[in-house]
Amino acid sequence: MHTGTLPLLENAAHPYESSQRVSGRRVLFSWVSNVVSNVGQQPQFQSNLSVEDHLDPFSLVADELSLLGNRLRSMVVAEVPKLASAAEYFFKMGVEGKRFRPTVILLMATALDSSIGRQDALVGDFSAELRARQQCIAEITEMIHVASLLHDDVLDDADTRRGIGSLNFVMGNKLAVLAGDFLLSRACVALASLKNTEVVSLLAKVVEHLVTGETMQMTSTADKRCSMEYYMEKTFYKTASLISNSCKAIALLAGQTAEVSTLAYEYGKNLGLAYQLIDDVLDFTGTSASLGKGSLSDIRHGIITAPILFAMEEFPQLRVVVDRGFENSDNVDLALEYLGKSHGIERTRELAVKHASLASAAISSLPKNDDEDVMRSRRALVELTTRVITRTK
Amino acid sequence: MHTGTLPLLENAAHPYESSQRVSGRRVLFSWVSNVVSNVGQQPQFQSNLSVEDHLDPFSLVADELSLLGNRLRSMVVAEVPKLASAAEYFFKMGVEGKRFRPTVILLMATALDSSIGRQDALVGDFSAELRARQQCIAEITEMIHVASLLHDDVLDDADTRRGIGSLNFVMGNKLAVLAGDFLLSRACVALASLKNTEVVSLLAKVVEHLVTGETMQMTSTADKRCSMEYYMEKTFYKTASLISNSCKAIALLAGQTAEVSTLAYEYGKNLGLAYQLIDDVLDFTGTSASLGKGSLSDIRHGIITAPILFAMEEFPQLRVVVDRGFENSDNVDLALEYLGKSHGIERTRELAVKHASLASAAISSLPKNDDEDVMRSRRALVELTTRVITRTK
Repeated sequence: MHTGTLPLLENAAHPYESSQRVSGRRVLFSWVSNVVSNVGQQPQFQSNLSVEDHLDPFSLVADELSLLGNRLRSMVVAEVPKLASAAEYFFKMGVEGKRFRPTVILLMATALDSSIGRQDALVGDFSAELRARQQCIAEITEMIHVASLLHDDVLDDADTRRGIGSLNFVMGNKLAVLAGDFLLSRACVALASLKNTEVVSLLAKVVEHLVTGETMQMTSTADKRCSMEYYMEKTFYKTASLISNSCKAIALLAGQTAEVSTLAYEYGKNLGLAYQLIDDVLDFTGTSASLGKGSLSDIRHGIITAPILFAMEEFPQLRVVVDRGFENSDNVDLALEYLGKSHGIERTRELAVKHASLASAAISSLPKNDDEDVMRSRRALVELTTRVITRTK
Repeated sequence: MHTGTLPLLENAAHPYESSQRVSGRRVLFSWVSNVVSNVGQQPQFQSNLSVEDHLDPFSLVADELSLLGNRLRSMVVAEVPKLASAAEYFFKMGVEGKRFRPTVILLMATALDSSIGRQDALVGDFSAELRARQQCIAEITEMIHVASLLHDDVLDDADTRRGIGSLNFVMGNKLAVLAGDFLLSRACVALASLKNTEVVSLLAKVVEHLVTGETMQMTSTADKRCSMEYYMEKTFYKTASLISNSCKAIALLAGQTAEVSTLAYEYGKNLGLAYQLIDDVLDFTGTSASLGKGSLSDIRHGIITAPILFAMEEFPQLRVVVDRGFENSDNVDLALEYLGKSHGIERTRELAVKHASLASAAISSLPKNDDEDVMRSRRALVELTTRVITRTK
């Protein structure tokens, strides 16, 4: 396990509240070792949030998701026909994806709702307006997410996405770059309309994080590629920042306290990290749960993820294999052999479980609220943490 | 002259205040014919703004431009080394370009300053804070401009820019796309810090316009490529929107009236249009002022600009040449022959002069102010309109 420090980053926007400075140097991700050493302990905090049978988080917000789809399609209408069809490409019916982020955001909005149950007409008006603003966060988040997919696919020269041709493959790199820029600018216009500058800053920062994460992945040195801290930081930027900061935005719009906003952020951050850790396992195992049956897409592109990093701790000689690169498929096979002998997959799953538990813990720590809708949404958020770690695709 | 209408664009963000709806259809750019028919009349409004000898607009704000350069370099510092060096590529000393936009913006800030001359200490504090916010607009504008250059160079596969290798040429397309995204996100974070949602909307809209203009240029039909209205609309989006909306932002931050904000916007819009029209002339003439000595870069890339559009009105048979495309250099020569026989270059210059005059007129229409600094900045803004139309490179 790497427990070293990253270089001092004076200008870094630090994603973790738990960072500390020791002897003038910021210690990043020292929590990784704590997290891992605690893995295996059962979370103690779910007693009052026991998951009901067949609680489907997605169906709880299905109606709103459908409205959101319509609004997204109307928000990306452009004057220029080609730009319009490029921008709406992944918002069309059937290729909207799982809409995981909007689901989390809408559930979080209800989970933090402190007006439910109050009958006051004024509260009702305020509540409806707040909900509309929170839905807008869900739309903005989805636009930022799709914009990053469009640019990532250009960078990776990807030819498919969500079961259809990638936009760069179908309409060319130029339109894919422009459509990504267009979605970002529409997201920024929508953000400005919320008239909350803290929320604008938060989500503008996310775009920066997405770019930072992508660049970290693309340009790392050999040592950094083999560092667990670097991997976790990159994973936060690429995957967890968007969902954590949009959860926080939901809390801020609702006028919640700093404590509640931080819990919302922690939920999103840990859910995002758990999601990506499992993604990295599935890249090796696929749906079969046996090694080597996944797409192996990361390792073939030279991207080193948690399973290999854990395996390298057990078998330091794996480092030589990693440093050789994976253009030669024999080298991929050799790395898989080491991975198979190690506890790399198991430890990655354990780390994912731990982050899922931390996400649940954040929900359990929210101020008590007896309203049925609020409770149901909180249970659904906890249920999502379970689904993230048990999913097989 | 094409005076037809563009298709009805219900969702269009309309750039021109002068647009009208006729029989349910919006008439865009009908002003082009008015503008052209008035060309040749001398502007009558400069009497109180006579340009003093050797008034150099750039040297008036030289100190602030130098500070701005430093701040830009510090604003684009990134955690990831490669991203940092990519993002600061065009902000380094020696390759900052003319800094035309920041110059206009800073001059506009002084030209609209109504606090100068008042000695009140409170006014002084407010004034310093306002100036800092207006400088921030200059920085944001420059970041948006450079971001668009980075992405445009990727789209055009350009290999040089500002006399050095383009970023895509030197560091690859991927880093150029990411660095552009990074600058946009930093611009958005800086915008949010101004805590003025109208200004955020205005500049977010500019990014959308830049993308729209680029897409219009890339994906037009044969008919649209030959339409003066389409050309002027595209030119507004690609060149004039950024400078017009940032001038308006300067006025809004200063708490100016809607009338003054519109004059600031009109100045920027007409200056931007004049600038681009002359650019399109220089692409044909180069510094020599004789036809065919320019780089001919537009026509060789199949981009049809004002000189050819005017020539086509005199020689409709030129349309056949244009529709054939310009991959064959004989076709370029044939188009140049028609252009040489026509008044295309002359009429484009006249149109540029007209827009430069409209820009000057906007300055002359500002509320009277006897302060020397204010007057000098206004004269400098007028001087810029002259420089834009008399420049030879």
